[in-house]
Amino acid sequence: MKKINKVLIANRGEIALRIIRACKELEIKSVAVFSEVDIEGLWVRKADECYPIMGDVVQAYLDYEKIISIAKKSDCDAIHPGYGFLSENADFARACEENGIIFIGPKPEHIELFGDKMASKVAMKKVGVPVLEGTDEPITDIEEGARIAKEIGFPVIIKAAFGGGGRGMRIVREEKDFKELFESASNEAKKYFGRGEAFIEKYVENPRHIEIQIIADKYGNVLHLGERDCSIQRRHQKVIEIAPSPLLNNEARKELYRIATKAMFKLGYESVGTVEFLLDPDDNIYFIEMNTRVQVEHPVTETITGIDIIQRMIQIAEGSRMIFLQEEINFRGYSIEFRINAENPLKGFMPSVGTVDKYLTPGGPGVRLDTALYTGYKVPPNYDSMVGKLIVWAIDWEGCVKKAKRALDEFYIEGFPTNIPLHREIVRDQDFKDGNFTTNYLDKKMDIFTLQSKDNIEEEEVKIENLKKLISTINSKNISTRH
Amino acid sequence: MKKINKVLIANRGEIALRIIRACKELEIKSVAVFSEVDIEGLWVRKADECYPIMGDVVQAYLDYEKIISIAKKSDCDAIHPGYGFLSENADFARACEENGIIFIGPKPEHIELFGDKMASKVAMKKVGVPVLEGTDEPITDIEEGARIAKEIGFPVIIKAAFGGGGRGMRIVREEKDFKELFESASNEAKKYFGRGEAFIEKYVENPRHIEIQIIADKYGNVLHLGERDCSIQRRHQKVIEIAPSPLLNNEARKELYRIATKAMFKLGYESVGTVEFLLDPDDNIYFIEMNTRVQVEHPVTETITGIDIIQRMIQIAEGSRMIFLQEEINFRGYSIEFRINAENPLKGFMPSVGTVDKYLTPGGPGVRLDTALYTGYKVPPNYDSMVGKLIVWAIDWEGCVKKAKRALDEFYIEGFPTNIPLHREIVRDQDFKDGNFTTNYLDKKMDIFTLQSKDNIEEEEVKIENLKKLISTINSKNISTRH
Repeated sequence: MKKINKVLIANRGEIALRIIRACKELEIKSVAVFSEVDIEGLWVRKADECYPIMGDVVQAYLDYEKIISIAKKSDCDAIHPGYGFLSENADFARACEENGIIFIGPKPEHIELFGDKMASKVAMKKVGVPVLEGTDEPITDIEEGARIAKEIGFPVIIKAAFGGGGRGMRIVREEKDFKELFESASNEAKKYFGRGEAFIEKYVENPRHIEIQIIADKYGNVLHLGERDCSIQRRHQKVIEIAPSPLLNNEARKELYRIATKAMFKLGYESVGTVEFLLDPDDNIYFIEMNTRVQVEHPVTETITGIDIIQRMIQIAEGSRMIFLQEEINFRGYSIEFRINAENPLKGFMPSVGTVDKYLTPGGPGVRLDTALYTGYKVPPNYDSMVGKLIVWAIDWEGCVKKAKRALDEFYIEGFPTNIPLHREIVRDQDFKDGNFTTNYLDKKMDIFTLQSKDNIEEEEVKIENLKKLISTINSKNISTRH
Repeated sequence: MKKINKVLIANRGEIALRIIRACKELEIKSVAVFSEVDIEGLWVRKADECYPIMGDVVQAYLDYEKIISIAKKSDCDAIHPGYGFLSENADFARACEENGIIFIGPKPEHIELFGDKMASKVAMKKVGVPVLEGTDEPITDIEEGARIAKEIGFPVIIKAAFGGGGRGMRIVREEKDFKELFESASNEAKKYFGRGEAFIEKYVENPRHIEIQIIADKYGNVLHLGERDCSIQRRHQKVIEIAPSPLLNNEARKELYRIATKAMFKLGYESVGTVEFLLDPDDNIYFIEMNTRVQVEHPVTETITGIDIIQRMIQIAEGSRMIFLQEEINFRGYSIEFRINAENPLKGFMPSVGTVDKYLTPGGPGVRLDTALYTGYKVPPNYDSMVGKLIVWAIDWEGCVKKAKRALDEFYIEGFPTNIPLHREIVRDQDFKDGNFTTNYLDKKMDIFTLQSKDNIEEEEVKIENLKKLISTINSKNISTRH
């Protein structure tokens, strides 16, 4: 076991701050790197040391030669990649190893394997995981396509191999429609993209996105930390994440735990990771992908289990053995995470930028806030729009939704639009309250939601102004009475 | 059972906000009352309705006729008194009842009983609680005093009946010294206060202050929510509270739970309340007092049990039955609360006032903040100096202390001095880390502590300025190279 003394954080924003906090609590020194536009970042301030990476401001967090050279110069034993950027780059993980630096994450071969969608499906199928069946290669022959579609079982989805934006895409629900729809998809693809080949894949109607948090040490101890329901998505981007899933039945839950844990055990996975599944309305399970990193939504799992995932991830990288048994992991209550994005819900969620002019954050019991925002901070336009995460907890689902409502109502950011109005509508929506949502939820609701929720603060200001007038009237009357 | 629809909060500051948050989460309307200087209070803004109480600004929160009249006019079914002010005023509780308003708290007779130190000792002794023995009446006769002291058992403390500020107070450790010390105490009291009578009470050397949180419904279901260690005190004021007590042995813990719960069951206590004990180094237990209200330090218990004490308190007042069994209450990890006071540790903890000019609050996992502070808020000088509470949690004691250190280092309030520097020294002190503290802890440490911890923000500003210079140097070099 090699004790880690100093960690370089190859990331920015809230996750960089999250990792620095974990380091401080483990009494490990932290080193931040930052692009020129990120100099006012809170994580830059909070790290024990920090080094600029000059040049292109996005490239800065991807330039692993520079990052490794800073890590070596500043005597770091380890690098934590966070999520995004270099977190799923096997070459980077290998380069760390070659330079004698611990990469805080899984083994490079696993990053590589799960970075390849096809290869990971094959590997997971081998270790008993039900996968979303589909063709490995683009199909041109209509008869071959029909045969494969029948094999997979309807509904299937035809996806133009060189397409995008929904063009050359058809859902086939019955065998008799296959040929016609394949032809039309192929023609559309030819027209728009010049080539008509298509993939055929099992189509899951109204699925829920359920993922299993895995934690594994270097000695074959593989545990799960329960599931997260990430069905609330917008354009395949998670918006809200929940642990545990409010309506998942226990049979399916146990099966997911078993499948995910066993697969990771058989593959010899190390560090933390997430096995993502789709579940159809009959609770049939389909593996979609494995994320070989800590995820944005890890806090909901931390909140219900009491386990600090980032701290454990660092300790596993040091070579620590697992410090708890599966049976010792207790799940308490419900937790919801709301991604706070700098984007304008009234303008098609266009990314917004600006300075935090006024900032009121929710507090009190059951509220956690992970963000690098502060009053006066100018959000740079160069990166992902997510600027923070609000995480709430309560002992039951109903209480958790009410807590969320209360906390979202307290949250006020002046300076640029955010998606808080969207969240406020979601937590007031009966389907959400009932746990009745699949990945189609937001698409359907977008027609109903007004996205115009006003911040309470405006009403409050008016209220206080009126009260002040009232008080001054009372006071002036009292004075005139005395005269 | 009478469903409560609207609650008037007869309090101010963080506890008023805490109760409003609970009401919102229970979907109960809230009504704030406020004195003229409190118009900018966050709780005034957050309540559904708010009414000024004109006149003396302290008296405002004590004027129960006005408060009840506001409650009636605004259609409140209930009043929550918080802590302090009217919370332990039996007449107020009765007046609420008489006006058809639910007092969210215990029965008036229990408030009355436990408001009388002597009577409560007698009552608790009757139901099997070991009390701190002492004289019920002032003693003048030295022989009688000696006899009583022997009966109580040494050490005893002699306290001038009409004294104060430590004058006329003597600790007697051995029988042979009693008469001499009684005489000197009596003479000192005569000199300073004109009268020499004194009480004699059992003296507990180096005690720990351990209290048991009780929760009881109207149907005889009395449960405990574990203990809190509040030994870290300054001049008999709690400064830091911890749950569970880090070094309490399990035998003593169980005995405290049993004693406290049984006594409250026998006395027919309702609502929440706290039974406070002193424990000597041999774990002998002495009841000191019962607090018939929610306490400042309730969050640490909420944090380790997951039970929302304020919500349950409201539901009990409605007539709800207990919603969990004693066996269902699970304690997870450790929690520490730090009282954030507007006071200057370098000037004898003199209360400070001012406006919150800059405000950076700690966040991330395991951090809860209960406060009504916000950037631009002016702390009025008229009330208690406590302006907030920082509550941290971690799975073990060591981790909890490290979490506290991290969170306290992140906390920055510009505008007036606070006691944060004191907390920062405490969490770095080896005795504290070892759980090695009694009520004498702070007295002893005050000689060692420098109370001069600098806020990190100052160092951070310098760091960022230097980085900016560095970057501009690099940039100007690059430009000159290009030329």
